[in-house]
Amino acid sequence: MAPELEATPKTDAAAVVLLSGGLDSTTTLAMARADGYELFAISFNYGQRHLVELEAARRVAAAFRVREHLIVDVDLRKIGASALTADLDVPKGRSLEEMTHHIPVTYVPARNTVFLALALAWAEALGARHIFIGVNALDYSGYPDCRPEFIQAFTHMANLGTKAGVEGRPFHIHTPLVSMTKGEIIRTGLHLGVDYSLTHSCYDPQPDGRPCGACDSCLLRRKGFQEAGAIDPLEQIADP
Amino acid sequence: MAPELEATPKTDAAAVVLLSGGLDSTTTLAMARADGYELFAISFNYGQRHLVELEAARRVAAAFRVREHLIVDVDLRKIGASALTADLDVPKGRSLEEMTHHIPVTYVPARNTVFLALALAWAEALGARHIFIGVNALDYSGYPDCRPEFIQAFTHMANLGTKAGVEGRPFHIHTPLVSMTKGEIIRTGLHLGVDYSLTHSCYDPQPDGRPCGACDSCLLRRKGFQEAGAIDPLEQIADP
Repeated sequence: MAPELEATPKTDAAAVVLLSGGLDSTTTLAMARADGYELFAISFNYGQRHLVELEAARRVAAAFRVREHLIVDVDLRKIGASALTADLDVPKGRSLEEMTHHIPVTYVPARNTVFLALALAWAEALGARHIFIGVNALDYSGYPDCRPEFIQAFTHMANLGTKAGVEGRPFHIHTPLVSMTKGEIIRTGLHLGVDYSLTHSCYDPQPDGRPCGACDSCLLRRKGFQEAGAIDPLEQIADP
Repeated sequence: MAPELEATPKTDAAAVVLLSGGLDSTTTLAMARADGYELFAISFNYGQRHLVELEAARRVAAAFRVREHLIVDVDLRKIGASALTADLDVPKGRSLEEMTHHIPVTYVPARNTVFLALALAWAEALGARHIFIGVNALDYSGYPDCRPEFIQAFTHMANLGTKAGVEGRPFHIHTPLVSMTKGEIIRTGLHLGVDYSLTHSCYDPQPDGRPCGACDSCLLRRKGFQEAGAIDPLEQIADP
């Protein structure tokens, strides 16, 4: 009898949470915690130009005392074609209209597919059935891989392509932010005690790590704090 | 007006081919070439225990004079849970029955999902619409992510989650080996002039790189050459 793969089954409360260290993924982590999940955070060292992003992910994971924080190396830089990994200019000062209707230069080809695939692999290795990702289809900034139909299709594929899925332990991909506005996301996070000073959003930070204030991500963040009637602790730091 | 992502559109004949350096992926490369595609080979340095696999992929890519051979670093070892990346024993001497009906310890969680996701990312960055993968559902050795329904689900997901798919340039995933026996695969490859001495199949090679002759992969390879009525050049090398 040949040895079979034995995953280490954890409780059904184990959840792998994709954590970039940004506002959305940090809020998602807080929501998974509030739902009682045992937290396994996964981040990606994918050749992003700014490692402040990974530093933020580490700070957030530590603050949440996640059970494990896995940083996977995957070199998307070799694959090319994005302002986040290559030497292209990050667009500045775009209107929400422009963000929503034009896939921006910051689009990384198939990034969420790659990240979810790696999260799925880790979930299966852990024996976890729940994956959380902070995609958002309202302020979705033009990314096709943030839409609910993409997430549904990914889940279907995942349950056909894994041992766990085929053997009747299907994966669930949770997208608690999917239909929230940025303001609702921030209100929810503040209600759950998130310290947004730990997070990082800017696509093009200044040399000292402070946000540029003009890229899509900074503009959406500012809009969100305005809608939530709250003050962004990062803006306080930026303008003391 | 913000800059938009400009992929470099290639001819519709550009194809990304997943190349492990094994018998199946090498035959797939030969079939894509015979169909007139311009070849872009992608291989993965994923923490497999035996780098002879990547050496074989390099030899094969060079022999086929592919337009580009991309080796992507993705550390699946951190994710764990497989004999191909961790320190588990590779099963030896299994019957075909055992191979087909039990997912083996050599199953890497969600491996084809991860590899196809990275191939998709590269295809999109290149402006290519065709992806070839040498999965096989007959001698499929128990892997859920080698079945046609998985490939169909992946394609559907890919066309929802990418800029190219959403904008009407859908991806096609070709699986020319999917319903071939190992014998048919080898006969096809020999007909197309494949030099199988360049390839590598063994899950557990000896220190000098020679195949063990007893793992699932070696046994399927031997069966294939027997069915094809041909001699495996690697066995000739092994037993001069």
